[in-house]
Amino acid sequence: MATDSCDVIVIGAGISGLSAAKLLNEKGVKVIVLEARDRVGGRTYTRRDSSYKYCDVGGSYVGPTQDRIVRLAAELGIKTYKINNTGDYVHFSKGKGTRFQGTWPKFWNPFSWLDVNHLFRKMDQLMEEIPVEQPWNSPHAEEWDNKTMKEFYDETCWTEAAKEFGVAFVNTNVTMEPSEVSMLWFLWYVKSCGTSRRIWEVDNGGQERKFVGGSMQVSEKIADILGSKLKFNEAVYKVSQKEDKVTVECASGKKYAGKYVIMAMSPTLQQKLLYDPPMPPIRSQLIQRVPMGSCIKNYVMYKRPFWREKGMNGFTSAADGIEPVGNTVDDCKPDNTVPALTGFIMGDQARRLSVMTREERYKETLECYARIFGTDEAFDSVGYEEHNWVADPYSGGCYTSTYPPGVMTRFGKEIRKPFGRMFFAGTETAVLWTGYMDGAVEAGERAARESLNAMGMLPEDQIWQVEPMSQDVPTRPLKISTWESVAPSVDSIVRLTSTVAFGALLGYTAMKHQHALSRLFDRFQ
Amino acid sequence: MATDSCDVIVIGAGISGLSAAKLLNEKGVKVIVLEARDRVGGRTYTRRDSSYKYCDVGGSYVGPTQDRIVRLAAELGIKTYKINNTGDYVHFSKGKGTRFQGTWPKFWNPFSWLDVNHLFRKMDQLMEEIPVEQPWNSPHAEEWDNKTMKEFYDETCWTEAAKEFGVAFVNTNVTMEPSEVSMLWFLWYVKSCGTSRRIWEVDNGGQERKFVGGSMQVSEKIADILGSKLKFNEAVYKVSQKEDKVTVECASGKKYAGKYVIMAMSPTLQQKLLYDPPMPPIRSQLIQRVPMGSCIKNYVMYKRPFWREKGMNGFTSAADGIEPVGNTVDDCKPDNTVPALTGFIMGDQARRLSVMTREERYKETLECYARIFGTDEAFDSVGYEEHNWVADPYSGGCYTSTYPPGVMTRFGKEIRKPFGRMFFAGTETAVLWTGYMDGAVEAGERAARESLNAMGMLPEDQIWQVEPMSQDVPTRPLKISTWESVAPSVDSIVRLTSTVAFGALLGYTAMKHQHALSRLFDRFQ
Repeated sequence: MATDSCDVIVIGAGISGLSAAKLLNEKGVKVIVLEARDRVGGRTYTRRDSSYKYCDVGGSYVGPTQDRIVRLAAELGIKTYKINNTGDYVHFSKGKGTRFQGTWPKFWNPFSWLDVNHLFRKMDQLMEEIPVEQPWNSPHAEEWDNKTMKEFYDETCWTEAAKEFGVAFVNTNVTMEPSEVSMLWFLWYVKSCGTSRRIWEVDNGGQERKFVGGSMQVSEKIADILGSKLKFNEAVYKVSQKEDKVTVECASGKKYAGKYVIMAMSPTLQQKLLYDPPMPPIRSQLIQRVPMGSCIKNYVMYKRPFWREKGMNGFTSAADGIEPVGNTVDDCKPDNTVPALTGFIMGDQARRLSVMTREERYKETLECYARIFGTDEAFDSVGYEEHNWVADPYSGGCYTSTYPPGVMTRFGKEIRKPFGRMFFAGTETAVLWTGYMDGAVEAGERAARESLNAMGMLPEDQIWQVEPMSQDVPTRPLKISTWESVAPSVDSIVRLTSTVAFGALLGYTAMKHQHALSRLFDRFQ
Repeated sequence: MATDSCDVIVIGAGISGLSAAKLLNEKGVKVIVLEARDRVGGRTYTRRDSSYKYCDVGGSYVGPTQDRIVRLAAELGIKTYKINNTGDYVHFSKGKGTRFQGTWPKFWNPFSWLDVNHLFRKMDQLMEEIPVEQPWNSPHAEEWDNKTMKEFYDETCWTEAAKEFGVAFVNTNVTMEPSEVSMLWFLWYVKSCGTSRRIWEVDNGGQERKFVGGSMQVSEKIADILGSKLKFNEAVYKVSQKEDKVTVECASGKKYAGKYVIMAMSPTLQQKLLYDPPMPPIRSQLIQRVPMGSCIKNYVMYKRPFWREKGMNGFTSAADGIEPVGNTVDDCKPDNTVPALTGFIMGDQARRLSVMTREERYKETLECYARIFGTDEAFDSVGYEEHNWVADPYSGGCYTSTYPPGVMTRFGKEIRKPFGRMFFAGTETAVLWTGYMDGAVEAGERAARESLNAMGMLPEDQIWQVEPMSQDVPTRPLKISTWESVAPSVDSIVRLTSTVAFGALLGYTAMKHQHALSRLFDRFQ
């Protein structure tokens, strides 16, 4: 069979691979993109139907500081809209909801609130010392990497409420349980997005907006530009490097040759290929060690947005080991048509539900919404969409690769180190908003520039580029109230209280028994 | 290209795949074995040369209770011999060696000895509650699985000496660092071998013997029986299952069809293949989560066995973060010719040395031996062999798949659950001596019997079979001295001492100040 030739082969037509291909194409480089699926978009996936127009069952949200994806989408003519967050947030645990305004839940128990406030303040303080480009060089890298987030929560939190909200924070951000991930890696992940508040917030944070028409359009519009340079249903199984070229073999029997290859897939999926010569030892072991998280995303349609009518904004969180849906988000269209809730099933709940049928998951979701929103109206759903990412062989999970304890410091350095004529894209190789669409663009464009540099078309010092701030989605400083920054931790209250109580007891005893004590002291002199 | 057909396709010609194929072949089943390498043996690898005859740079040791591998080898005409352990063992740390007799190092500091003794006694006690067939059902499964071995050592050990020997115990048994592995998984691993003593010991333990002529002979002799049914250089990249058959596609372009397929490779390597239909969700995520350990095994030849001349038996252990070789074993031939030491470079040291050249590793090994054995004679080596398993693409590491925290309870059940017409062999799926050659035979023969059962040739209740005790390598009870079983832990000594000291102080104070105290007490009444 004939071999198609080009300059650069890109493996994977998600946002990362396509943004690499787009940049190379613009520079006049002959590029071929190979995609195993029959669609583009990778971990972004927009479903369409006349009843609801479109819905994202994969990556969807964008916000301030995500300047690369916002710039790329704008260039492609895709508009953003703001997610509804008028009304109360709800944090739900074991049958009880806490309604609140602001970033973190305001528990009625003041100790719980202080504990949550202190937990996130502390995480942000610790993160400050992590250099996003090389977290393995953090001053406490080894200590933090040999610890799980569970250990960190166990030593940091005084209240069950704070610990459980901490679990929600890990579930939501990386679709894993705290005992499964390295503390260093998780803090790095959050740091790459800014702060705990930037990653968590709606207004001025990671969930501020979505794309009108769905996020998969970013990939589709680049696919339109590339035309026949993009090949579908091409599952690559082998990459061979010779002195002057790279050959890629596909399960279809077709072969492709190029001067360079860009791997635009998660490290985990790179395991699926044969390499000749083999991957270097540490990289070979790295890609065995960074499994994809576990996530099912769904979309429940209603006749009326009953949560709004009850004063809730549709954002909820739960990590009580009972509720299947760990997060909900209002997903009505920007013109308020098609009332709907998007749901995230993550970590242990995703494992439990991943082996169920679609109908069972739909049923569990509605039962969960009836409890969380406190109304049987939740059962009156008029439609359902979902994607079980755990079962998707060409993603292997979602949203991103995750690092168990010990992996980041021992193997992490290899994540984007070029291997011969091979460069590495994929959101996992980004330093800002890793795991997000924005990280995918950063990584894809950087890998494209690495290959341009290798072909003598770009100086080395231009491989990494600073992205100007978007005017459409402007970044504002994050407001932290004085009280939030100075509120004591439960730990300091306990210490203060003990000290005061001990002092008071001593003082009382001394006063009451001055005579007896002075005789005692005399004896010891 | 024509498709070769058979009843059962076995993928992988290590001991597990070949013992499956041998059993099926004996039952008259048409079998084809596909091997990616140009040799059999998988993680057993015997090098040969006229200067040293043979040496094992992969799996090598056998001992009592490993009745399956011993039976298979005997049937194939392969003899065992006992490893020399006359002389002192050495545990080496930061420039100082502790010479001792018995199982665990006898540190001069009695607290260290008590602490080590208590550590292993405790591990053995905890292991008792782990059912080897389903460790995820242990009473404390969740608690222990969400903890690393580092956490367990940190809570259990009082002395640095015990903790460091604990690190050596994890390094040696699973070629990983304690912070990288689940406590539940590690205890299960040791339990599958019997007890901490059975896995660690030479005499009456896992290191009692080797095979005369090398362990790869087991595979080679089965290969001789199979003849052309075994295909070399066949790297499989895809397995497709239809209602009535399985098709296997290889990078060579060849296809094979069978009624059933046995996957005789580590779970990690199963990641390398495409599956149609895709693997079930939990299995798909399991095989992303169980990376191979990190090991380099080498063989240093000398003119004279200088360690024996100094009263040492050649067994040493080190886990001080300095010495590259974590374990050495006397590897003179059974007739005492070819004086040699086998060395194991494991965990972090394997990662450090895996990226060096062969010459650099040889040099580091000799320098290490000069320190550990305390003599410059260690530099007078006359030959060197090694295998860098970290860099081996068709093993991905050695000895075995390892479980980070949280994986065993969440994904472990899938390890040997058949998937359609696919059965799972490989030592990782064994319940006794998992990770060892013996586990490979157990798993291979069980998977073969699963396919016999599926073909209506064997009742279901005969799939799992009890192996009679070998007469050639008899199992004796393990001796534990009364002192070892009753010696106090450091913890209990500290508690006892504190109680006694506190009581004595109270008593002294009470006697000395009876009058003043009685007045004090009066006031409170």
